[in-house]
Amino acid sequence: MPETATISTIPAEALEALRRIVGESSVLSAHEQVLVYECDGFVIEKNTPDCVVFPETTEHVVAIVKLCNEYKIPFVPRGAGTSLAGGCLPVGGGVMIALTRMRGIHDVNLRDHYAVVGPGTVNVHLTQHLKGTGFHYAPDPSSQGACTIGGNVATNSGGPHTLKYGVTVNHVLGAEVVLPDGEVVQFGGYTEDNPGFDLTGLFVGSEGTFGVCTKVIVRLTRDPVAYRTMLGVFETVEDATQAISGIIGAGIVPAALELMDQGIIEAVEPAFHFGFPLDAGAVLLIEVDGLEVAVDGEAEQIVALCEQNNAREVRKADSPQQRDLLWKCRKKAFGAIGRLSPSYCTQDGVVPRTKLPEILKFITEASARHDIRIVNVFHAGDGNIHPILLFDERDAEQIKRVLLASDEILNRCIELGGSVTGEHGIGVEKINFMNKLFTEADLETMESVRLAFNPTGLCSPQKMLPTAGACGMEHIEKSHPARRAAL
Amino acid sequence: MPETATISTIPAEALEALRRIVGESSVLSAHEQVLVYECDGFVIEKNTPDCVVFPETTEHVVAIVKLCNEYKIPFVPRGAGTSLAGGCLPVGGGVMIALTRMRGIHDVNLRDHYAVVGPGTVNVHLTQHLKGTGFHYAPDPSSQGACTIGGNVATNSGGPHTLKYGVTVNHVLGAEVVLPDGEVVQFGGYTEDNPGFDLTGLFVGSEGTFGVCTKVIVRLTRDPVAYRTMLGVFETVEDATQAISGIIGAGIVPAALELMDQGIIEAVEPAFHFGFPLDAGAVLLIEVDGLEVAVDGEAEQIVALCEQNNAREVRKADSPQQRDLLWKCRKKAFGAIGRLSPSYCTQDGVVPRTKLPEILKFITEASARHDIRIVNVFHAGDGNIHPILLFDERDAEQIKRVLLASDEILNRCIELGGSVTGEHGIGVEKINFMNKLFTEADLETMESVRLAFNPTGLCSPQKMLPTAGACGMEHIEKSHPARRAAL
Repeated sequence: MPETATISTIPAEALEALRRIVGESSVLSAHEQVLVYECDGFVIEKNTPDCVVFPETTEHVVAIVKLCNEYKIPFVPRGAGTSLAGGCLPVGGGVMIALTRMRGIHDVNLRDHYAVVGPGTVNVHLTQHLKGTGFHYAPDPSSQGACTIGGNVATNSGGPHTLKYGVTVNHVLGAEVVLPDGEVVQFGGYTEDNPGFDLTGLFVGSEGTFGVCTKVIVRLTRDPVAYRTMLGVFETVEDATQAISGIIGAGIVPAALELMDQGIIEAVEPAFHFGFPLDAGAVLLIEVDGLEVAVDGEAEQIVALCEQNNAREVRKADSPQQRDLLWKCRKKAFGAIGRLSPSYCTQDGVVPRTKLPEILKFITEASARHDIRIVNVFHAGDGNIHPILLFDERDAEQIKRVLLASDEILNRCIELGGSVTGEHGIGVEKINFMNKLFTEADLETMESVRLAFNPTGLCSPQKMLPTAGACGMEHIEKSHPARRAAL
Repeated sequence: MPETATISTIPAEALEALRRIVGESSVLSAHEQVLVYECDGFVIEKNTPDCVVFPETTEHVVAIVKLCNEYKIPFVPRGAGTSLAGGCLPVGGGVMIALTRMRGIHDVNLRDHYAVVGPGTVNVHLTQHLKGTGFHYAPDPSSQGACTIGGNVATNSGGPHTLKYGVTVNHVLGAEVVLPDGEVVQFGGYTEDNPGFDLTGLFVGSEGTFGVCTKVIVRLTRDPVAYRTMLGVFETVEDATQAISGIIGAGIVPAALELMDQGIIEAVEPAFHFGFPLDAGAVLLIEVDGLEVAVDGEAEQIVALCEQNNAREVRKADSPQQRDLLWKCRKKAFGAIGRLSPSYCTQDGVVPRTKLPEILKFITEASARHDIRIVNVFHAGDGNIHPILLFDERDAEQIKRVLLASDEILNRCIELGGSVTGEHGIGVEKINFMNKLFTEADLETMESVRLAFNPTGLCSPQKMLPTAGACGMEHIEKSHPARRAAL
């Protein structure tokens, strides 16, 4: 590549050293190359890294991290870049450590129910790899066809089946981590509840601020013996949310309980032709699983509860193909949004389940107030909402209105006793909400823990906590006041 | 109380200040008073605290902790003192903060499935309080009639139902904590998966080294609709462990799966008269729960699997009274041991389930080698063994043999791919095993996290990690070389 195209502010000798570590072709530094990495799924804030490196081994990561320390260059790990909160935005420029080539499935132990995988393993590839064994990897974010398990670890990802099976932290037994100073440590192990502090649990959800994950030991979950998948069709969102309360209140824990409103159905139906009624106010996708003798009874109860809450109809997926199509519609809903608008911002808020009607009403009002179309698809059983704000990112005025509407919705979530993220993480997007969610003492405690792992602040600077790391900050102030100005 | 009986090395003015904080009658400092607190359930190491204070509010705890900081006096929180690993041993003397009076059940929210309790709440009192609501608190250590929820949080306690329902960390949503410097912080909250680092998960199992818990938000679990409780009787321990492998291998997750060997049955049967066969090699206590339609099928499968593995018979508990008696026998087994010997040391090791026959054979050999009688009762489904070493603590020679046999068993657990504690914690007892379980880098990482919370080392000194805290150590070196000399 021509040296003239390089925009790096990294010293040439450091770049050379990186090339010696991973090989010439595994370092990108030309402008048109690093531009691809200027943002993740949160398209509103952008910054190009100085270079992108693609390690293939733990030793590569160690050498890269040590080099960054030597030159005081910030570094940020990245999986597939599907973060919706700017989790892998290279705020301070510097070195982006792209882990996509560390995607080996190193070990599968069906007797003890675990697998050891590289952080770059695509989520669904693990479950595909396990096909026929009777096991799967339970966390199933909607982006599971693209997102990596390392990224899931960073954000403690959820998914439709979180309601019954828990989030990523419930399925990670251990991790090999390169600490911000280049030291390799092993958190957890092959069994649950290892001695010592639960650093595995702490590491999951720390959004790359405690180091770079190089191996993950995940728990494997037995496939359910039987399941029943249903689609409840409702005239209004209110009726659908009442049905949710009814189902949970009856003591049923569905494997999944997802709501899609009329707006999202309008995008999904033309894309996948499932046969969704375009005039329904909302549909609920409900799945129960367990023993064959148990699921029919639960399914019947659910049908009755939907009908009590004015469901127009409740359809049952009567073949595996129909179930697969229904799940495809749900999981690829985000892709279908391209039919509605050029850009979208998926919000991620949490409210107590009983407050769902209230927050949905508020979202409708915010949509009108800011003249931004908002559609909804979310994990209703968890009270985890995902309003999707539609806009055109080429229009700065629209971006401002999207940010304002988002902030109002998230503030309302807090007022209703909820929080500003259920599963997408804080990233750079929600850093300014941390002061609203936590006291100064709470944040100081978090900061002191971060400093224990990451005293130089070079590792994933300006993520999660409103305070910056201790140094290496000279790289950081230069970029992207856009969002901050809007707030 | 006569001042002459006071042995405290705490400055008199500090003691006076403590009395002003909590009231005269809530500070014990006379020798015969503090002697009661010289050890917990791990009777082998002893040290008296300089004084014991009984706070009743968070403000009391804050004031006590700040005072200890002012005078550089070590302090250690204590629940019911049921630790089997010396978790609340006041190694460095100093102030023991006894939390037994902070036992209020402050809030029960059945809609959102949580309760807020004081750390001194006795575990079973919460479940008793919930009787009739359809909910219970799931973690059920054998000591649940005495141990406190605060102590369960410190050690991340398990119990017979851990196999299906998980350990304490899976049931703690948040905690109010007085940090070692007296600052009050709130970890977690009323819902799962709060933003920010998962400090709740980190705090659970930190054995009092990160501060003093003053409130716990626990998750409530719905009572199972139906259960079936069975007793499998086997000629040999090997057959019983083979049956365990068969049950788990068949994909059944029993609510509980407990093994008692012939030795422990000899103590339990005369105490509770359940009708255990005294000549059986081992019995399995097996419980399945779930929907009424599901449990019979699972129970039948279990009976068949026991029979395939040479069970002499499988009895079903055919009334709630019989079930209660069976569980009483299991949970009070430790109390019944008084019939066999004046003292006992309950070990706590973990092995992969498939290694159970091997470790049990090793225990039998260790028993013979050191002439120490060992009986077994344990959470077989988890591979969590509890060999109980019987001895007379008045005989120093026996203590030495108990420690040697314990160490050999725990080392063997490590060799078999397991670890040295499943649920009792490291405490002071197992601190010397940490170097065998973790690399230097792993331990340094843990130490740096501990220093983030507890930089002075005054809070629960010499617990969990083989390195000591940074200062305040002048109190610590003075006492109890007994165990260290034996190792």
